[in-house]
Amino acid sequence: MTEEGQHPVLAAGMHRIRVRYAETDQMGIAHHSAFVVWLEEARIEWLRRNGSSYRDLEAGGVLLPVVELTLRYRASLRFDDQAVITSRTERLGPSRLAFHSRIERDGALCAEGTVVVAATDRGGRPIRLPPSIISAL
Amino acid sequence: MTEEGQHPVLAAGMHRIRVRYAETDQMGIAHHSAFVVWLEEARIEWLRRNGSSYRDLEAGGVLLPVVELTLRYRASLRFDDQAVITSRTERLGPSRLAFHSRIERDGALCAEGTVVVAATDRGGRPIRLPPSIISAL
Amino acid sequence: MTEEGQHPVLAAGMHRIRVRYAETDQMGIAHHSAFVVWLEEARIEWLRRNGSSYRDLEAGGVLLPVVELTLRYRASLRFDDQAVITSRTERLGPSRLAFHSRIERDGALCAEGTVVVAATDRGGRPIRLPPSIISAL
Amino acid sequence: MTEEGQHPVLAAGMHRIRVRYAETDQMGIAHHSAFVVWLEEARIEWLRRNGSSYRDLEAGGVLLPVVELTLRYRASLRFDDQAVITSRTERLGPSRLAFHSRIERDGALCAEGTVVVAATDRGGRPIRLPPSIISAL
Repeated sequence: MTEEGQHPVLAAGMHRIRVRYAETDQMGIAHHSAFVVWLEEARIEWLRRNGSSYRDLEAGGVLLPVVELTLRYRASLRFDDQAVITSRTERLGPSRLAFHSRIERDGALCAEGTVVVAATDRGGRPIRLPPSIISAL
Repeated sequence: MTEEGQHPVLAAGMHRIRVRYAETDQMGIAHHSAFVVWLEEARIEWLRRNGSSYRDLEAGGVLLPVVELTLRYRASLRFDDQAVITSRTERLGPSRLAFHSRIERDGALCAEGTVVVAATDRGGRPIRLPPSIISAL
Repeated sequence: MTEEGQHPVLAAGMHRIRVRYAETDQMGIAHHSAFVVWLEEARIEWLRRNGSSYRDLEAGGVLLPVVELTLRYRASLRFDDQAVITSRTERLGPSRLAFHSRIERDGALCAEGTVVVAATDRGGRPIRLPPSIISAL
Repeated sequence: MTEEGQHPVLAAGMHRIRVRYAETDQMGIAHHSAFVVWLEEARIEWLRRNGSSYRDLEAGGVLLPVVELTLRYRASLRFDDQAVITSRTERLGPSRLAFHSRIERDGALCAEGTVVVAATDRGGRPIRLPPSIISAL
């Protein structure tokens, strides 16, 4: 949320999650795979707030599968914790889009990561990012 | 494992699972939702051992969605525990099939349950159980 | 949602969920195991709205593991669908509590089920339901 | 499996998985978060084959939480597909260990990634990697 001007900051969004009991593991913290699911939920909410329903995109033949994922875990999240995911987007060529995200609890960084998605048709062939997304960037 | 003759025992099968770390929760045991996924895996293995690939069934237009689920949890399973799922099947009319399952670790009952699936076409309309399944019962 | 007076309706609560992409399966619908996780989330919210934090209960040595689960699936939920879970509680003896729940989308029943939890200490031994829960019933 | 000599190849291991139905999503492929869980399972099997039970490690006070995760997805995996995960390990200082993994189906690369774990005590404080792991490297 404190992205400086020199970054290719194209859009911003926030999404709030609460750690589910089923997302904890026997270390007593949220399992690292849960963050991957939260980031997906945050991307979908980012699209919605920017005028694109991912459901409608898929219905129209535009899929956005994940092609790359990087996550650095900084602090644990525990059951029932609430966290805020802040994402900024970056266009990577005609069909790829990166979401750079920070997951914070009470302002403290818990994880940060980047997810790259690629626009494809239903057969998995790369296509251009749809105008509705490009205009939101 | 010891189903007597008076039951409508139609077929039997066993499937082994090992509790994944991601399947534990902060109680230090396998989360109760993991059992639901294991039972599904056991059904698919039951089909395979009885000559039906569920992948092929779906490719051929036969889906087997779950319509009813009952589970009673008797003892915990922990990370890395191995358990054996023993299932017997029961036909419930022309399109429905019940799997009665026991999940045991070292011969001790951890959970038992029944899952009812219904054969449908891709549009969700009930269809008859395919002959490949009926002949396996 | 239409609990009649003759039922042992002791409390009621509602919880809203939205189907995550990760919760869908290749049938194009929410996987049946996702409902189990949503019901857990709804129980925890029911406790919170009734003055009990499940996090605090566990920290105080009271666990509420699931001992029985029944679900009947009536209609599919799809990605991005929102559903409302309405639960009423029923006390089953000194240590057990049943949550009878309906999962509805736009007023249409998608699933209904009962989850029974048992109060235990950290060692898994049954204990009495805590007063904070009993007073909420 | 074709790691060249100039890499800090310290050990190798293979682990086989089969895509569960619950791991698919409505794109008809294994959800990208499932790979994260498979890599964890592969790490635990790597430890076992190298003489370390992760269950015993945790019981002895040594935890190996994930601190970094990178995944590049190259080709889809589908329901019922079998894949082989090949991992080589690399020591990163006194308390960190990297697993470089390839996920292949029939020899074709589906995903590759690196997971870094850090040895900690139960309080989350960094500790040295245990001798049982170091001797396996």
